[in-house]
Amino acid sequence: MHIDSARLYRSIDDLGRIGAYTDADSGLQGVNRLALTAADGEGRRHVVARMHALGLTVTVDAIGNVYGRRPGRNDALAPVMIGSHIDSVPTAGRFDGCLGVLGGLEVIATLNDRNLATERPLVVAFFTDEEGCRFGTDMLGSAVATGRLPLEEAWSLTDLGGKRVRDELDAIGFLGDAPVLVAPPHAYLECHVEQGPILAAKGLQIGVLSGVQAISWHELTIRGTSAHAGTTPMELRRDAGVAAARINLHLREMIASGRFGEMRATMGCIQPHPGLVNIVPGRVIATVDLRNPDDAAMGDSEAGIIGFYDRVAAEEHVGITWRQTARTPSVAFDPDVRARVAAAADALGLSHAPIISGAGHDAQEFARICPVGMVFVPGEFDGISHNPRELSTPEACANGVDVLLRVALGLAE
Amino acid sequence: MHIDSARLYRSIDDLGRIGAYTDADSGLQGVNRLALTAADGEGRRHVVARMHALGLTVTVDAIGNVYGRRPGRNDALAPVMIGSHIDSVPTAGRFDGCLGVLGGLEVIATLNDRNLATERPLVVAFFTDEEGCRFGTDMLGSAVATGRLPLEEAWSLTDLGGKRVRDELDAIGFLGDAPVLVAPPHAYLECHVEQGPILAAKGLQIGVLSGVQAISWHELTIRGTSAHAGTTPMELRRDAGVAAARINLHLREMIASGRFGEMRATMGCIQPHPGLVNIVPGRVIATVDLRNPDDAAMGDSEAGIIGFYDRVAAEEHVGITWRQTARTPSVAFDPDVRARVAAAADALGLSHAPIISGAGHDAQEFARICPVGMVFVPGEFDGISHNPRELSTPEACANGVDVLLRVALGLAE
Repeated sequence: MHIDSARLYRSIDDLGRIGAYTDADSGLQGVNRLALTAADGEGRRHVVARMHALGLTVTVDAIGNVYGRRPGRNDALAPVMIGSHIDSVPTAGRFDGCLGVLGGLEVIATLNDRNLATERPLVVAFFTDEEGCRFGTDMLGSAVATGRLPLEEAWSLTDLGGKRVRDELDAIGFLGDAPVLVAPPHAYLECHVEQGPILAAKGLQIGVLSGVQAISWHELTIRGTSAHAGTTPMELRRDAGVAAARINLHLREMIASGRFGEMRATMGCIQPHPGLVNIVPGRVIATVDLRNPDDAAMGDSEAGIIGFYDRVAAEEHVGITWRQTARTPSVAFDPDVRARVAAAADALGLSHAPIISGAGHDAQEFARICPVGMVFVPGEFDGISHNPRELSTPEACANGVDVLLRVALGLAE
Repeated sequence: MHIDSARLYRSIDDLGRIGAYTDADSGLQGVNRLALTAADGEGRRHVVARMHALGLTVTVDAIGNVYGRRPGRNDALAPVMIGSHIDSVPTAGRFDGCLGVLGGLEVIATLNDRNLATERPLVVAFFTDEEGCRFGTDMLGSAVATGRLPLEEAWSLTDLGGKRVRDELDAIGFLGDAPVLVAPPHAYLECHVEQGPILAAKGLQIGVLSGVQAISWHELTIRGTSAHAGTTPMELRRDAGVAAARINLHLREMIASGRFGEMRATMGCIQPHPGLVNIVPGRVIATVDLRNPDDAAMGDSEAGIIGFYDRVAAEEHVGITWRQTARTPSVAFDPDVRARVAAAADALGLSHAPIISGAGHDAQEFARICPVGMVFVPGEFDGISHNPRELSTPEACANGVDVLLRVALGLAE
């Protein structure tokens, strides 16, 4: 039994037209469905309509997570859940997250086509603000659903414009009334684009996720003194922009030192104030994103960069404060589900290997409450993601969802 | 004969209340009268009303420069002009520019008090957008008035929101009908806060300007590839933010090398796109501000940093383009007027020394068409400027305007 590859890819294209924009650099069509914007609302309504058309019973919880349920022969059993997200970064392609949700719906459609019932119920879910770009906390919806983040705390998060999660949920019509804490599923499955170059480089068709690396986000506030660029002697400056530049370059030196394992690091946001050509920046808001597959190495790298904040503050005569805006440990996925994913790939004649995820995923939140499995498919162009060039072929997508179907059926019987 | 110190300082306070805001960092009251905003319009109307009250004949030209004329006994002679600006950076104090304009009006008020006529007419002027923060070109009004910049070119400049100079002049009611090209004055005088620490450090009351240093502004566009911060291996990244950081720190290394004389350099603006915590910046707009009292050293430093742009582009696999948004050579002021400024300070018993300006001033534009003199007064707190902490004492301001009065009277007879 195979899923309908053309139908799956068409559904990815259809959803990708919602929030589409033309990228100024490349001329390509990108996707901008930042969480809880009007475009996200339109995308959500599109997917909910598809759920209804497939006969699923749809519920929306108080953090905006959406669950579409297909009953089992024994409907009292814990369901097999297939999930991911449909929100995007502002400069996205059309695969990240969407493949997992639309892949889940394609599994349902395939079973519907054949009038196949399963012993356990099947649930296809999408979760609010997985990306974390707008409200500063990623995996927001799944973190609330699995009990890591209290609802009131999630509701009160604000974006840079001061808009609150609860109000923005309400504004797009997705402030649901279902309780947020989800009953532990029998298992949770997620199919996702790799968002990296490894599978393509090794010529592999399927990545069997062994887990997710640790993530640590810092938001820095660097306070110097804004001053006249033409008259202030260099030795009297307290330049917050120079301090940010030193931290940015130090991250790369830390990686090059080899002391922190497979560390990755990024300064994605730098906002100098007032940000004008002839004024020494008096204040900078900047972010640091650290990733590491090893928890101990992550801890070492955090201590290293925090120590460097203090050193730069002293040497540049600036104040540096920081707050942790995200912190998740590395997560190891369930060995039984991993074995099922590998066996399904084998049965389908697909090449595969274990792989660790460099990105955060909703699956890691569910790993706290149930067995979890993830399936990666390769992306073109070194697996570029969070970019309009993001592309996985119809074949790659179909391979991943075929594996999803097979594993879900096995777990649901 | 002395000016009225209390009246002068009160007039500075009065104008400083227009566009006032409370600085979030310091809690101090700052001034934000960015050129051609509503606050600038209000400040302009306030000064024009004061000109009328002093009996001056007010004209407004087509770039919004405002001239208030007091007739001379021989009104056909070229006037002595006293000028500066009242627009501000967004994070200003209340002295930069305003001291020169209000000091000029205080000279007129002092002469009016005594019913003193002068042989030559006296003109007090303020010029549009000296700061250049909003439309990217500093000394905009005086550059048009003295023929360096064509009116049509100045009118068509736009701010970041796409608003044009001509429309914004019209919006605040200062699109005048007087021709922009000014008849060369007999001499041009300007009193200004030093905006630097040198006078205070040397315990001097007056700085006799020998000239203005060269200025060069670059606006850089750095193009890399936006990519996922968690999954993109470091060796595959094209991080435009890292490239900007390297350029920022290289500016300081160039200064430290001592190879470029008294070079100053600032990266005031850094705008990463998309500017989010978990996305490698794919594009950065950044600015470089170079200053140098020596034209040859300025040329060397420009060649040096342009060469470094190419090196960073190659090493970081990014594209770097730049455009020159301002470029003025160093300017030497007229020796006769300099001698008059020094003699006036001596006659008033004020300590003084020659000094070169680190900032651009309207006076340097007039230096092309007539003899120019400038008077600097010291500022507190290392002469901090473009900052709400900017402060010159009532005594310091009065000293400068007393010198202005004495030199203007000498030149006008």
